[in-house]
Formats: sequence, structure tokens, C-alpha cells
Amino acid sequence: MPTPAVHIGPGNDPLLTEAVERGGGEVVALADAEALVVVGGHGDLPELHDGIRWVQLPSAGIESWVEAGVLDAGRTWTSATGAYSSSVAEGAVALLLAGVRGIGRAARATSWDNEALDGVQSTLRGSTIAIVGAGGIGRAMVPAFLGLGARVLAVTRRGLPVEGAYETWAADRVGEVFAEADHVVLAAPATSETKALVGAAELAALGPRGWLVNIARGSLVDTGALVEALRDGTIAGAALDVTDPEPLPDGHPLWSAPNAIVTPHSTNPSTLRVPLLAERVTENVRRFAAGEELLGLVDLSRGY
Amino acid sequence: MPTPAVHIGPGNDPLLTEAVERGGGEVVALADAEALVVVGGHGDLPELHDGIRWVQLPSAGIESWVEAGVLDAGRTWTSATGAYSSSVAEGAVALLLAGVRGIGRAARATSWDNEALDGVQSTLRGSTIAIVGAGGIGRAMVPAFLGLGARVLAVTRRGLPVEGAYETWAADRVGEVFAEADHVVLAAPATSETKALVGAAELAALGPRGWLVNIARGSLVDTGALVEALRDGTIAGAALDVTDPEPLPDGHPLWSAPNAIVTPHSTNPSTLRVPLLAERVTENVRRFAAGEELLGLVDLSRGY
Repeated sequence: MPTPAVHIGPGNDPLLTEAVERGGGEVVALADAEALVVVGGHGDLPELHDGIRWVQLPSAGIESWVEAGVLDAGRTWTSATGAYSSSVAEGAVALLLAGVRGIGRAARATSWDNEALDGVQSTLRGSTIAIVGAGGIGRAMVPAFLGLGARVLAVTRRGLPVEGAYETWAADRVGEVFAEADHVVLAAPATSETKALVGAAELAALGPRGWLVNIARGSLVDTGALVEALRDGTIAGAALDVTDPEPLPDGHPLWSAPNAIVTPHSTNPSTLRVPLLAERVTENVRRFAAGEELLGLVDLSRGY
Repeated sequence: MPTPAVHIGPGNDPLLTEAVERGGGEVVALADAEALVVVGGHGDLPELHDGIRWVQLPSAGIESWVEAGVLDAGRTWTSATGAYSSSVAEGAVALLLAGVRGIGRAARATSWDNEALDGVQSTLRGSTIAIVGAGGIGRAMVPAFLGLGARVLAVTRRGLPVEGAYETWAADRVGEVFAEADHVVLAAPATSETKALVGAAELAALGPRGWLVNIARGSLVDTGALVEALRDGTIAGAALDVTDPEPLPDGHPLWSAPNAIVTPHSTNPSTLRVPLLAERVTENVRRFAAGEELLGLVDLSRGY
């Protein structure tokens, strides 16, 4: 088995050096590298010489890299898709539960007011939760929702069955899920097809007891329509880890809506991310050395 | 099968009348009743004539009824223990997840600050969660925690195995769980044995990454010790649905602690409670008519 020569940069973390070595690789200077583990954003990507045959990107969603035009066809690119699934999925479950059980409202209170929380709570037990975009992250939510007594309706690109979901629909039926489900969790990639997927009509279909969770990308939701729906009680609430615009500016109505919870793109915090990226790097370095297919291969024609 | 003559009072709810009838009973005036479904607190209990052979109380925890001395030995008393288990359990899971994933802090923010949430989050995945008092409510949490990838250490009075828990300890070992578990959820009844169960030593054993959740009764926790532990970072945080004193007075340090979440005894809101009580009433009226053992029989010698 060859020893892959891997550069880590421009940043580094001791966990990643360990990860490369645990995968059977050796950490080298960029000039000597045949593989690169990028630590940083797309603006940090160094000039790549022809000897670099594989680049491991640090994020699961890579549209900023695609838009920046830095992914060339001269080598293999892998995203970290799936590596953070369990962490982001847990964040999504936490957001939906916090919404449904009134914890966002309660956290802001400075006075004991049982009445305020009495009428607004509902339960996931017995409810139908649609997961729009049941890739790695969406699938990782399913056991938790089942454990809470909910049932899961999954939407995937092609509608292939998702384990644990009572039904899986193909993406061309996504417009119907807002009427079918009690709550909707957005976990789909940001593409031209998913842009403004959720607008006024979808929110009206979700209805006054429904919660919307977005842990995907802000562009999937028409923010103006959402603000109106929250203000008018068209939906019960929204819990958003991603927004459009992002970062959400100070004074934006989503900050003050009592039925909104905003977390600052933090369902994948570094404390949980670096150990999970390190696991992925170890596995991919091992696969690279063995000539096996890498995890998270980027399809440049699809953009993810 | 006889038709039980049941009085509902002093309050009522159409759902409860339906529930009595669905169980095979008839709703009658108090003077004609052989059974009473109490809607209200212990101060609302009407004078009971000797014909009342069974009283269904509306709450799961009944220490206020016991302390008020209104439970006489002349008839059968049932609490609603277990009826609300799924609702309260869901609230407990929501509180622990909200704590661990920083949602309490995020909900209070009015500005996008990713850094603030980056260092404070941890995950339930791979963690050990101790459920202290694995009765109906505690047991109902287990599937959700397993679905989130945690393992469960249960503590029950006698240590009989709890389904899904990797281990169950008897109550005499409860002091050890704070060192053993990553997070602790209190779900034990308020008795003389559980009073101030959690003090400074237990919080120190729980440690700086541990969350404490209390959905049982405020008396289980030494509030002064908890406030200090939150302020000093002795534990990561606390999510409390019950407090001592309760209601928590305005200006109490728990309202302003960034690592505390307080909900106002609301994990069992009326929106979710009345339908669940109605289900219990139906079942107990059916059992009463059939001469079967009732659910939630109160043991006056134990006080619950």
C-alpha cells in the first residue's frame, strides 16, 4: 500500500494531522503533495499544481466553492458531505422540539408565566414530519423522530425509499408535502431547483399549527413571505439555522418574532465539526491509498 | 356490566364527559355519584359522601393533596400517574437538547454571533444520560434518547431493569450517577428521600460539560447550590421546568443565567393534558365498571 503524501492547509489542527497519519498518509509540504486537505474557505485555496490529484474540502455544502469557480476538472474533489450529518441532524431535531414545545419563548422570559406557554405548545408524538432532502443529514434525523413517536415523510431527488420513513416522495412532488405534513424540516442542497422552494403558498399549506425548520441554506425560503406568515399566524413558527440574508442583520423582524428561533448557522459548531472532519479524512486517506472510491465525491455537473 | 355513576367537578371539559361515556359510565350529580373525577386542585375537592367509592385526581404528582390531608382511607384514590408521561417526557428531551445545543442562548440573541454558540455546544450522541426516577415519564424518554444516539442509565426505587437502559440502578446508588453520567434528568417523585437530592457535591460530580434537567419537582434540587454551580461553570447548564421556590420570583438569578433555561412548569400544558386525562378517565371508568384494578392507584402509605 503506498503512503499518500497529503498537505493540510492553509490552516491546520492537530486532530487533522493525526487523522491523515491514522489513515496511512504522511503530512508533507504543498509542493510535494498528491492530495490536499483544505482548512479554510474557497478564498484560501492555494494554487494547485498538477501533482495534486485529490482535494478534500472541509464543508458539506460546497455551493460557494462552485460559484467561485475554483473546482477544476483536472482532479478529484471531495466534499465533507455526510461527515457532519449526525451533528446537524441533532441540531435540527433540537430546533423543531424547541419550537413545538415553546422553549424559544420560555428562554426569553424573565417572569413566571405559565399561561403564556399553555396555549402555544404542541407535540411531535403522532405528528407527521416531512424531511425535504433526505440525504445524509435528513436520514440521520429519522431515528430521533421515530423515537419521539412521530412518523417521517421523506423527500429525495428520485424518491428512492428512506429507511424508517413511512413514505418517500420524489422531488417533483415536494410542493405537496406542506399540506401533507404537520411540520417540515428543510435539509436539501441549495441548487437552482430549491431556490425559494418555500413561499407564501407553501406556508399557507403548512398551516397554523405547523413549524418550519431550515438547517439547509437560507435561499430555500422566501424570507419576506416567512416574516408575514409568522406575523399573521399563518404558521405556528419557524426555527432557522440559516437565513437569507445571512448573516441576519440586526433589527431584522426575525430577531423579534416571538414564534421564531434563529441560531447563527451553528448546528455544525467547530467543537463538534473538527473531530467529525478528522474521522472523514482518516477514512478518505485510507481509501485513497487503497485506490477505493472516496466518500463525498463532487459531481461537478450537479454542483454538489 | 354496571354503568358507573360518575360526577365530574368542580370544573368540567366536554372531553371528560365524552371520556366517561366512552368508558361506559354516566355523568351524574355529586349526590348520586359513586365515583368522582376531580377537575381542579386539592382546595376544590367537594365534601365526599360515603357513596363515593373512587376518586380520580387530575394530576400525576399528588404531594399537594397528600400534604393537605384530603386523601382519606375510606375509598380508592387514583392519580393520573403515567397519563401525561409521553408529553412530559417529550418536554424533558426538548429541554436537554435545547441546553446541549445552545438554543436557550440563541433564543435570547438579537444579533448574529456564531462565535457565541461555537464553544458551548455539545452533543447527546455517544453520551450517557442518567434518568433519575424511571417511572412512566422516565421510561417514555428512553426511545427518544436512544434515537439520538445516547445511552441511558436508569435509576429506579428498586433497580428493576428498565427497557432500553444499558443499566438500571436502585435508588440507594443515586449519589453515584452524577459522576457516571454526562447529563442527568430528574424525573423522581417528591418525597422525603428525594428532597435536595442534588446539592453542591452532586453538581461538582456532574462536571463542567454536564447538563441537569429537572421536570420532577423543584424540591429535588438545592437551588442555592445550583445557582452557584451555574455561575462558576461547575456544570455546563440547567434546564428546569420546576423550581424551588415555585413560581420563580422575578429577578431570581436563574432568570438571567446564560446557561439556564426555565420553563414555567409547562411540560404538561393543558392543550396536551386534557386529551391525555380524558384517555385515562375512559380506561379507568371501563376498569371500574368491570371490577378490574384501576390505573394510578395511590398508595397512601408511600404518598404517591
